[in-house]
Amino acid sequence: MAETIFSKIIRKEMPADIVYEDDRMLAFRDITPQAPTHILIIPKEEIATANDITPEHDELIGAMVRTAATIAEREGIAGDGYRLVINCNGHGGQAVHHLHLHLLGGRPMTWPPG
Amino acid sequence: MAETIFSKIIRKEMPADIVYEDDRMLAFRDITPQAPTHILIIPKEEIATANDITPEHDELIGAMVRTAATIAEREGIAGDGYRLVINCNGHGGQAVHHLHLHLLGGRPMTWPPG
Repeated sequence: MAETIFSKIIRKEMPADIVYEDDRMLAFRDITPQAPTHILIIPKEEIATANDITPEHDELIGAMVRTAATIAEREGIAGDGYRLVINCNGHGGQAVHHLHLHLLGGRPMTWPPG
Repeated sequence: MAETIFSKIIRKEMPADIVYEDDRMLAFRDITPQAPTHILIIPKEEIATANDITPEHDELIGAMVRTAATIAEREGIAGDGYRLVINCNGHGGQAVHHLHLHLLGGRPMTWPPG
């Protein structure tokens, strides 16, 4: 896949408001937040879209979801609740082709989800 | 956790339009679809919310996301794209307290995601 702006954030060549990092993933605040808390969780491995997830990624993807919940707890929104979103390709509204999980909360989210 | 309607669907005591099943998960069409394709992927294990995911669940949760992408491919919407959503508690809009992953596609999804 082509490198995206997220690769530069991972390498710390682009600034980002990082809220969590480990050897497999990075989490930082969305620069165009759609809710009081809006954080992106991304794998350090370059996976373009959800269509590109292989069985070898299962544990990583699950850990990203679990980390989103942990971050929600730290943000103080776990009890009230939050929404997790992965967009894939055009109809999904995927803006950057490096897989990312959105964590949105701090307000009631409406239905449908876009 | 308290048993939900999803436990009855897993046990085939409640009808559902099932599109995928294996030993760990079940996928069926949402009865109030918000898009031309709207499918729920649920673990057979009773996990109430995203807050209840433990490291032991990582591989399962990742497999659910990967299975959603596989179902999207079968539905013919993987290329155009789709949105994956997990709602947690009240602000997330979680209606059933048995963890479920929404797969929505077949139309352009808008932003914000609710």
